Amino acid sequence: MEIVIGIVAGILTSISMVPQLIKVIKEKDVENISPMMITILLVGVSMWVVYGVILKEWPIILSNAFSVLVNATLLIFYFFFRKRT
Amino acid sequence: MEIVIGIVAGILTSISMVPQLIKVIKEKDVENISPMMITILLVGVSMWVVYGVILKEWPIILSNAFSVLVNATLLIFYFFFRKRT
Repeated sequence: MEIVIGIVAGILTSISMVPQLIKVIKEKDVENISPMMITILLVGVSMWVVYGVILKEWPIILSNAFSVLVNATLLIFYFFFRKRT
Repeated sequence: MEIVIGIVAGILTSISMVPQLIKVIKEKDVENISPMMITILLVGVSMWVVYGVILKEWPIILSNAFSVLVNATLLIFYFFFRKRT
C-alpha cells in the first residue's frame, strides 16, 4: 500500500512543473515567476539525483532526473522570455 | 556523506516554493503562474506526508508538511489575486 502511495506521490511531485513549463511556452511571459524558486528547486533535485546515484536507487534517480530536465528548461525559458528592464 | 546530501536536497526542495510565495504576496499578481502546477504539487506533497506517516519517517513527514503549508497558502493567494475575466 505505501509503495503505491510513494510511487503516485513521486510521479505527482515530479510532473508538477510540467503545466508551468507549458504555460510559459504558450504565453511567452514569466513576469510573476520567481527565478529563485526555479534555481533552488533545480539545485535541490540535482542533489536528489546525486543521492540516488550514491544509494543506487533508480526510482530516486529517474524521477529527479526528469525534474532536473523540466526545471532546467523552465530556467532557460525564464531568461529567454523575461522582459529586459 | 549521502545523509548530508539527502538532508540538504530535502531542505532545498522543501523551501523552493517560499521565494515564489513571497513574490506573489509582494506583487499581488499571479498571471503567469500555473494553478495546475500548485494543485499537482499540493496533492503530491500531501501524499508524501501520508507515506511518511505510514513509514513513521519524521524527516519525510516534516519536510513535506512544510511544503503542504507553503503550497496551500500559494493556492489560496492564487485564487485571491487572479484577475476575474
